[in-house]
Amino acid sequence: MRIVDIIEKKRDGEELNREQIETLILGYVKGQVPDYQVAAFLMAVVFRGMTDRETAILTDVMMHSGDTVDLSSLPGIKVDKHSTGGVGDTTTLIVAPLVAACGGTVAKMSGRGLGHTGGTLDKLESIPGVNIEQPLDRFMDIVRRINLAVIGQSGNLVPADKKLYAMRDVTATIGSTPLIASSIMSKKLAAGADAIVLDVKVGSGAFMHTVEDAKKLASLMVRIGDHLGRRCEAIITDMNQPLGLAVGNALEVQEAVNVLSGLVPEEEPLVQVSLLLGAHMLLLCNLVSTEEEGKEKLLQALRSGAGLEKLRQMIAALGGDPAYIDAERIKELCRVRRLVEVYPLQDGFLAGLEAEKIGIASQMLGAGRAKKEDTIDPAVGLIMHRRVGDRLSIGEPFCTLYVNDETHLEEAVALLHESMTISSEKPAPAPLVYAIVKE
Amino acid sequence: MRIVDIIEKKRDGEELNREQIETLILGYVKGQVPDYQVAAFLMAVVFRGMTDRETAILTDVMMHSGDTVDLSSLPGIKVDKHSTGGVGDTTTLIVAPLVAACGGTVAKMSGRGLGHTGGTLDKLESIPGVNIEQPLDRFMDIVRRINLAVIGQSGNLVPADKKLYAMRDVTATIGSTPLIASSIMSKKLAAGADAIVLDVKVGSGAFMHTVEDAKKLASLMVRIGDHLGRRCEAIITDMNQPLGLAVGNALEVQEAVNVLSGLVPEEEPLVQVSLLLGAHMLLLCNLVSTEEEGKEKLLQALRSGAGLEKLRQMIAALGGDPAYIDAERIKELCRVRRLVEVYPLQDGFLAGLEAEKIGIASQMLGAGRAKKEDTIDPAVGLIMHRRVGDRLSIGEPFCTLYVNDETHLEEAVALLHESMTISSEKPAPAPLVYAIVKE
Repeated sequence: MRIVDIIEKKRDGEELNREQIETLILGYVKGQVPDYQVAAFLMAVVFRGMTDRETAILTDVMMHSGDTVDLSSLPGIKVDKHSTGGVGDTTTLIVAPLVAACGGTVAKMSGRGLGHTGGTLDKLESIPGVNIEQPLDRFMDIVRRINLAVIGQSGNLVPADKKLYAMRDVTATIGSTPLIASSIMSKKLAAGADAIVLDVKVGSGAFMHTVEDAKKLASLMVRIGDHLGRRCEAIITDMNQPLGLAVGNALEVQEAVNVLSGLVPEEEPLVQVSLLLGAHMLLLCNLVSTEEEGKEKLLQALRSGAGLEKLRQMIAALGGDPAYIDAERIKELCRVRRLVEVYPLQDGFLAGLEAEKIGIASQMLGAGRAKKEDTIDPAVGLIMHRRVGDRLSIGEPFCTLYVNDETHLEEAVALLHESMTISSEKPAPAPLVYAIVKE
Repeated sequence: MRIVDIIEKKRDGEELNREQIETLILGYVKGQVPDYQVAAFLMAVVFRGMTDRETAILTDVMMHSGDTVDLSSLPGIKVDKHSTGGVGDTTTLIVAPLVAACGGTVAKMSGRGLGHTGGTLDKLESIPGVNIEQPLDRFMDIVRRINLAVIGQSGNLVPADKKLYAMRDVTATIGSTPLIASSIMSKKLAAGADAIVLDVKVGSGAFMHTVEDAKKLASLMVRIGDHLGRRCEAIITDMNQPLGLAVGNALEVQEAVNVLSGLVPEEEPLVQVSLLLGAHMLLLCNLVSTEEEGKEKLLQALRSGAGLEKLRQMIAALGGDPAYIDAERIKELCRVRRLVEVYPLQDGFLAGLEAEKIGIASQMLGAGRAKKEDTIDPAVGLIMHRRVGDRLSIGEPFCTLYVNDETHLEEAVALLHESMTISSEKPAPAPLVYAIVKE
């Protein structure tokens, strides 16, 4: 079948079969199918969608477009987690050590920050000595030894996604649910875990702006996982404001260390979402039989310091200095030339926060990349002092900026003011978790 | 505005303004906008369509992407006709000379055959000596002298259409009404006529398969013309079977010569559609005041031989041998190695004919091009002996093939059989003209 006929079928809403999807995607990876035909196909998918079967095939074909990681020589059920991207969302650095401390095996390949969202790799690299580029055998060794490793993508994993993502980015075809789902799942599946817990963010700071859309994406990804023989669950969580209070790299590692040191109240959203994700990871590993039991076990690992010790072991295994995994010592990594307090422009209640703008403000200070080539300043970022629902007063800062380069400081402050909605009445509390999707 | 934002606007169904359309189209012609972004845009147009205003702007921008022809130094209203492409549809060679014989000024740039449809240029070139590549000043001279010239596209006319058409062809985005309309109208408007009569074909052998779609396309093209200051009308005519009986190049010229020699009954569809098109051309030129008056005037020119004489003059002006414009002499151009009669496989009534298959059968014999590079054999093709509604008998041929190269002869015969629907009952007569669209 000619490529133009495959595009035509999708344009007309017909279902493509494996052979047609392979012809298109593998041909594209090999450079035999030109960019413009893939671009037309992607736009047709935006309008016509894909059936579950098509999306599972697409994911499978993408996953096998390059190397895949075989974790089967490691004992037990290997579990991974993935977040669709948030602001102030450092759950991985909390939940991965806690799950490992509870006997789970966490073998995770993570990503860099993208746009206004942070990335675990950038956060890890703020710790002196950490090398996230580990060869595959070394990755396996670490997991075998300490049950836990989080590294960068190793080898030629899912080249189809690299090409397709770059194309989607310049053809306004990013926001299609089956394309998002197959992009995420092909990478997760290629990385080899047996079980995956997905944290699908919804709100102003997320890909998905409505709970309904987030549920669709979550459900689709879980079904793809099932279809391809992996155990998957998804949790839909709020991203209308940063999840934690810290936004930045060392600042977020510090917040994770504080959580694991018992210095952050257990009812804080970052801790709650971490416990929920961790409990479902333990459930998928058959290490607990209820969500409640999972949370309890994780809390024990937190209170005993076992989670903090796991993080320390992993940092050491990645070549980093484990001494920084300490609530006092980590402050050294957050030293900047200037702290700038940001005050609200009026009294009232904080009725809303746009997480995306807060993420961009942090990026403007140097904590994130506007372009791939940009370098990151690990120490900079911001700490929020108020959450949605809190009372604001003109005299009290709602945010502290950690600043080295002041070039875009004024813009960042303006954006933070823009991100706030202030109201005279206390807003109704918004949910933190919208749904748990198991199929 | 970035190109990706322009694509996104169209994807989301918003209206683009002139600046955005210019950025995209002129950037593409200059090689600054990559193929893949245009491909994604075209597919978004397939789904979202374009407003009248957008389509008129697109047409205008395409029209001015290269040279335009200025016919204003010629006296009177210059009139053109355009057919959206048919099989056995040689109206131009009949109507252009007749209108010129009635005092109209016909300055037309024509095209080559495309796929299963024939092209006027290929037909003209079957006459020895004819050169359809005339420089612009020579074209103007001929029109000034004899009121009539049909040549190939001269100069760098509408380069945007050349690039866009090639892209649409390989991205399954051919069939979008605003894209078809802007492609046709940009070329017609760039060629400089003041008034244009459009013959929009509908049926199995046409771009448009339903009368409703054909009406939409016709109406859109007429509105674009109005919007850009030209007088336009469209006639929607049947292409469920070949319009004339001849399909080929010299064979169709012969049929036109026969019509202009009075050898074809005036009630034949080819003559009827030619008279209708011609009457509306005369109306747009203000040379008659009713359709009936126009038809009468054209019939006089036909019966007096003035139309045939005009065609003869034009052939001579293009360097061809005018002696062939004669019902006896032209037979020499249709001499082939072998005539093959095709018989129906059963008795009954001819209930349907698929014009596209008949066009492809003729192409297989060498009368058309499957690829741009293919050469055409001017003498080959076929003559139909039956029209839809006629009685068929196993012993009587329904078609005669004019064959030189027999390579695909069997396939062509099979396709002709496939093109027929035979029924035991006489089918209800189908209309020849569905509508006349004036705005």
